[in-house]
Parts: sequence; structure tokens; C-alpha cells
Amino acid sequence: MSDIMVRAEPLTAAAFAPFGDVIETEGRAWRWINERTSRRFDDLARIDVSESGGRPLISVFEASPRPLPLRIQVLERHPLSSQAFVPLQERPFLIVVAADGGMPLAQRLRAYLSSGRQGVNYKRNTWHHSLIAVDQITQFLVIDRGAADHNCDEWRVDESELIVSLPGR
Amino acid sequence: MSDIMVRAEPLTAAAFAPFGDVIETEGRAWRWINERTSRRFDDLARIDVSESGGRPLISVFEASPRPLPLRIQVLERHPLSSQAFVPLQERPFLIVVAADGGMPLAQRLRAYLSSGRQGVNYKRNTWHHSLIAVDQITQFLVIDRGAADHNCDEWRVDESELIVSLPGR
Repeated sequence: MSDIMVRAEPLTAAAFAPFGDVIETEGRAWRWINERTSRRFDDLARIDVSESGGRPLISVFEASPRPLPLRIQVLERHPLSSQAFVPLQERPFLIVVAADGGMPLAQRLRAYLSSGRQGVNYKRNTWHHSLIAVDQITQFLVIDRGAADHNCDEWRVDESELIVSLPGR
Repeated sequence: MSDIMVRAEPLTAAAFAPFGDVIETEGRAWRWINERTSRRFDDLARIDVSESGGRPLISVFEASPRPLPLRIQVLERHPLSSQAFVPLQERPFLIVVAADGGMPLAQRLRAYLSSGRQGVNYKRNTWHHSLIAVDQITQFLVIDRGAADHNCDEWRVDESELIVSLPGR
């Protein structure tokens, strides 16, 4: 089979809604707090981590850049919780997810490019690729679920002709 | 009364332990994940938000820089939850907290300077000043408690001769 190239689109809340939340301030409502020295952009992600005694777990992932284009070989999902990633250095990163449905993966795969001022919060059960930093090492604050039980399914992709890149690469 | 100047110390996990967690990767344990493309620094803060049906609330606060030295007039605390602040642009910020105890506030006040690669998570009931950005507008990811009940006490400081600054200012 020949390769199928999936090019990333800009990350927007509307496009990403089936997969989860975009954590960003651009275009969002806010209010003054702390005697008008700060603006508060409230409630930007639905954190879903309390299933079966789970607790919010705060971590940092430090991701090395991946060579692009990237061949998609493994996706993962968390059946018991959401998982949020917020970049800590305003560096763009690539998000790869698969929509639900019976179609071949080639028709379900979506790729989005975060501006670096946008994080994402994957809903429970959203198939997604692991972190894809672009060009530079990037740290992410991660909010997921702390518990001892199994909460990660892996999907070794058969259609390994799928490759993902940025516009222009 | 004459002014009492409190100068900020560097923020370290040991110094800050009575007040909460320092969210940072420097010097912390980590492990490889995602086929050794990322390092995971796990479980960096004790998120305490579930009291009386509370949920984890994810927000962004955008703080304007405060003029330094800063006169301390109001402190606040959250009796039902922790509250975490993680800077999103690696910009230093100033943290002001008050230790427990019966001494005058002048002896209880502590000021710490985050490198910009360090966040903090205030424990429940830690008296702290609102965000103090230094020199530039800074955004923070905030993890606190979502619920309708009262969760913020204010302390209008009598000893308004207390001023806080950075070393050298």
C-alpha cells in the first residue's frame, strides 16, 4: 500500500470538541480578580478522574521532538479518565486522535497543531497518539488519574501507511 | 512605625514544605515513557479538592506585574482545598505566605521567588498573597476546587508597614 499523509489542521475548540477540551484563553470569557490585577479564565476543562476512587494526579512530561513526517504505529486511550496536557514553554505540538466509527482508521484519523498557547484534555476513551513535540524539547503539565488499576489501552495500528505531518513538511 | 522589608528567598521544596508543594522537575525522580521519547515526573502535588463534593477546577489566571517593593495589605486562604499555580511562560513570580503561630505577622511572613520553571500548590488553610507577577504579564494554570460554597477567607493586614521585594530591589 502507498502512504497516506494526514496533514495537521489548526487546533480549535470546535474541531476538537468530539475528542475533548482545548485549554486556552483566546476568545474565552474572563473576569477580573485580585483587585483587577489578574484576569480569571474559569473552568477550561472537564477533569474526569474520580472513577473507582481515582484522584487528580499532577505530573510533568518532558517530550523530545519527533521527526516529521511521523508514521502512526500505536494509539492509546484511557477508559477510566480524562487526561490533560498543557505546554509549559509556549511551543507548538502536534495532536493526533481517532474519531469513533466503523470506518478504516485512515478516515478517522485527525491531526491538530497547537499554537503552544493551547493545551488539550482528552475525554475518557479518546484514542490518541502519545505526545508529539515539534523541533524542541517541550514540557507539559499533565492532569490525569492516580489509582492502581489498569487505565491504558494500546492499539497497534495495522494501517502503518498512515503518516502525519505539518502543513508544508 | 517604620517599614519592615521582607526580601524573597529562592523557592525550594524544603523551605516551602510547611506551605505546600513546589511543582518542578529539577532534581526530581523520573522515568521513561512512550518508547523513551518522554520523561515522566510523577505526582508532583497533593491536590486536595474533593471536600464536600468539590471537583478539580482548571483555570488560567493572567496576572499583571505588581510594582515592587509591594506593601502587603491582604492575605487569603482556602479552608476547603489546595490551590495550585503553574506558570505558562517560564517567568519568575513572587510568592508570599504566612507561617502558623502566634507571633506578629512580621515574624511569620515569608517571600519566595520562583524561577519561572517552578509552580506552587498551597495547602488548605495556608495564608498567601494573591499572584505577584514580576515585570511582565504572566499566565498561570490554576488547579483548585469547583463548588458553590464559601472557600476563601480574607485577612486585611494591620501591620501595613510590611513590604516585600526581591533581593537587590
